Amino acid sequence: MVRNDEAWLDDVHWDDKGLVPAIAQEIGTGRVLMVAWMDRAALKRTVELGEAVYWSRSRQRLWHKGEASGHVQKVEAVRLDCDGDVVLLAVQQVGGIACHTGRADCFFRVLKDGCWCEDAPVLKDPSEIYGSL
Amino acid sequence: MVRNDEAWLDDVHWDDKGLVPAIAQEIGTGRVLMVAWMDRAALKRTVELGEAVYWSRSRQRLWHKGEASGHVQKVEAVRLDCDGDVVLLAVQQVGGIACHTGRADCFFRVLKDGCWCEDAPVLKDPSEIYGSL
Repeated sequence: MVRNDEAWLDDVHWDDKGLVPAIAQEIGTGRVLMVAWMDRAALKRTVELGEAVYWSRSRQRLWHKGEASGHVQKVEAVRLDCDGDVVLLAVQQVGGIACHTGRADCFFRVLKDGCWCEDAPVLKDPSEIYGSL
Repeated sequence: MVRNDEAWLDDVHWDDKGLVPAIAQEIGTGRVLMVAWMDRAALKRTVELGEAVYWSRSRQRLWHKGEASGHVQKVEAVRLDCDGDVVLLAVQQVGGIACHTGRADCFFRVLKDGCWCEDAPVLKDPSEIYGSL
């Protein structure tokens, strides 16, 4: 009997576009850094590499997080929710910056009195992270 | 000049189905409890009520989390990510059980040697939570 090495990928309930949301949560702080999307190849590659690889919907290609910035995410655990349609990664965020705006995480806007207020500092100017585009 | 009281809802980038994923994160532990979906009415109602209200895709209606189980989520903060397409809730989980399986959270499966292994206990039998269906 041939064992299907990708059976664990079949357990994921990919949506009608073949994607699932993947949450990156920082080990230690518990901080939710970001949410991106994964297709089957991205999740497989993430596990092989031990670093987060997402599916970029805007660029329509695999996106090895940190490929341009160096801010890779070392993945120490991959979790799946009860419905099988959300992935949760436990990561170490290299460089301490997950957001393309230069902030530690992407959730720097909090609702207050009917407005989204920014409450987290830019740690590094994006032009320094990505260079002149 | 008439102020648009729902401008903050316009800042959310609803997907082609009018939804965004919403993460419920437990205050104190930092535990990611669950991910569900919100439409505009669900997010508005969540803020009005101070308790998490989602859009149930399976039932195609607003779902006040805990309406059957009593396990409501008291919402203390609502965050939006940089792209405006994911919501992060800081919640107190009443009853200490977020998952319909009777576990503390929905992410009780971790990838190990090519298998999803359950590593969190059922705290209460679902039949006790929801009664006989």
